[in-house]
Amino acid sequence: MMTTKIEVATTRVELARRLDAVRAAGKSIGLVPTMGALHAGHLSLVEACARQCDFTLVTIFVNPMQFGPTEDFSKYPRTLEADLALLSGHGVGLVFAPATEEIYRPGHETFVEVEQAGTPLEGRMRPGHFRGVATVVLKLLNLVRPNVAFFGRKDYQQSLVIRRMVADLDLPIEIRVCPTVREPDGLALSSRNVYLSADERRRAVALSRSLRLAADMVRRGTRDSETILSAMRNVLAEAGGIAVDYLVLANPDTLQDVPRITGPTVAAIAARVGKTRLIDNEILGE
Amino acid sequence: MMTTKIEVATTRVELARRLDAVRAAGKSIGLVPTMGALHAGHLSLVEACARQCDFTLVTIFVNPMQFGPTEDFSKYPRTLEADLALLSGHGVGLVFAPATEEIYRPGHETFVEVEQAGTPLEGRMRPGHFRGVATVVLKLLNLVRPNVAFFGRKDYQQSLVIRRMVADLDLPIEIRVCPTVREPDGLALSSRNVYLSADERRRAVALSRSLRLAADMVRRGTRDSETILSAMRNVLAEAGGIAVDYLVLANPDTLQDVPRITGPTVAAIAARVGKTRLIDNEILGE
Repeated sequence: MMTTKIEVATTRVELARRLDAVRAAGKSIGLVPTMGALHAGHLSLVEACARQCDFTLVTIFVNPMQFGPTEDFSKYPRTLEADLALLSGHGVGLVFAPATEEIYRPGHETFVEVEQAGTPLEGRMRPGHFRGVATVVLKLLNLVRPNVAFFGRKDYQQSLVIRRMVADLDLPIEIRVCPTVREPDGLALSSRNVYLSADERRRAVALSRSLRLAADMVRRGTRDSETILSAMRNVLAEAGGIAVDYLVLANPDTLQDVPRITGPTVAAIAARVGKTRLIDNEILGE
Repeated sequence: MMTTKIEVATTRVELARRLDAVRAAGKSIGLVPTMGALHAGHLSLVEACARQCDFTLVTIFVNPMQFGPTEDFSKYPRTLEADLALLSGHGVGLVFAPATEEIYRPGHETFVEVEQAGTPLEGRMRPGHFRGVATVVLKLLNLVRPNVAFFGRKDYQQSLVIRRMVADLDLPIEIRVCPTVREPDGLALSSRNVYLSADERRRAVALSRSLRLAADMVRRGTRDSETILSAMRNVLAEAGGIAVDYLVLANPDTLQDVPRITGPTVAAIAARVGKTRLIDNEILGE
């Protein structure tokens, strides 16, 4: 079997040269921004991109600005060779994998804030996180100027922040948010799952199980949020060893808590399993 | 004499339609963003734009977000008919004059901060001002996607904030900063000069006179900043009725005060003449 070698650019100059040629050929460009440590969730974005766009660009950049001072930036998995192998054969035109200094020049001092969407939930737990996300995504969108950019719904609030930013700043770019990809038992794929011990891995499934329970309850007619949240908390408590950061039923546009389910509602959860922080979500009542 | 009627767009849709045609014709686009109340200073930007670019777009938008709650947003001069008459015959391809709601949609919540460049001087006197400037300029740059955008050096710190933003956010746009245009006696042209009474107008010339004195002193060899600032303060005090907000000799890239003149230095002044706040600056030691 032949493996196709994927082209990799590490500088802005190489990136621009390659994209100029793509644009000159009249091709549409799709962007899949990632932090590497790729898994089937990322692959589903790449495949959606390759279906919709003539040219698929994957960026691999572990963005220091979206990690807090006590978070896992230094130990975040960096697996470029494996990432390139995984992407092979999926129609990727170019991987852009720059060094930190290629993205952030000395004296970088410009930041983007998305105020409402970035404030609750992850915004409260991880101060500065969405500022870092919005800033790097805007930079990547400007460097690449894609027609479409693809994000995973697993990071629901991130996708909301980015959709708001793109609309508010008048970027002529379509944002596509793709479904969460899960392990057979329901655990949402995440680059951070590799941190889990075998025991933690077993307990971690309670996150998705609690979300599925919530979806079932809504489907069967439960409307009172506290009833649903209470049942979800029981599932998490029974698994043991799970410290919940937040568990909410919220309006999917504003992320404000809803007391009753009267329309599409996002159930969002963040929890630490051992030392590993996981997030997951599900849209209920769709 | 025939006057050419300038084309005016008031919606994004009209703007995009016109610019698509310009781009399809392979023409370069220059942007001159203004708040209207146009004077010869703006005209010099328009002329620089028409010289460098195939198509000149002037935007006229009084941006509420860059005014503080106690500032002059509601009384800021709005003179669209006179503005269009002034622009006539200067090679303007299109004027974009949108309503506030056309630029800021309901729920707008994304803001751009340029931290260092936006902090001292005007940033300290007018909290939120540069956040408003950076945000609206980024939106206009995204709506227009010009090859070049033109700004006046009269708003020196604003031009620095915008240059930093464009560099940090990787926008493929050249920023041109054009010299301040002055009245014969030296007063920098400003849309706010119309607020001045005849008496205030006479006193206001002390701002530019103090800057000219500083430039002369540096040219003749003075290097000590306090000696220069002291002479400038005397000029302002002698004029009478001028309340200085700040008066600095600063590094033109960082806006940090310099104790001695060892290279290009910006002399920047903000002062209230009666109720009218004026700013002016000069680069010394070039």
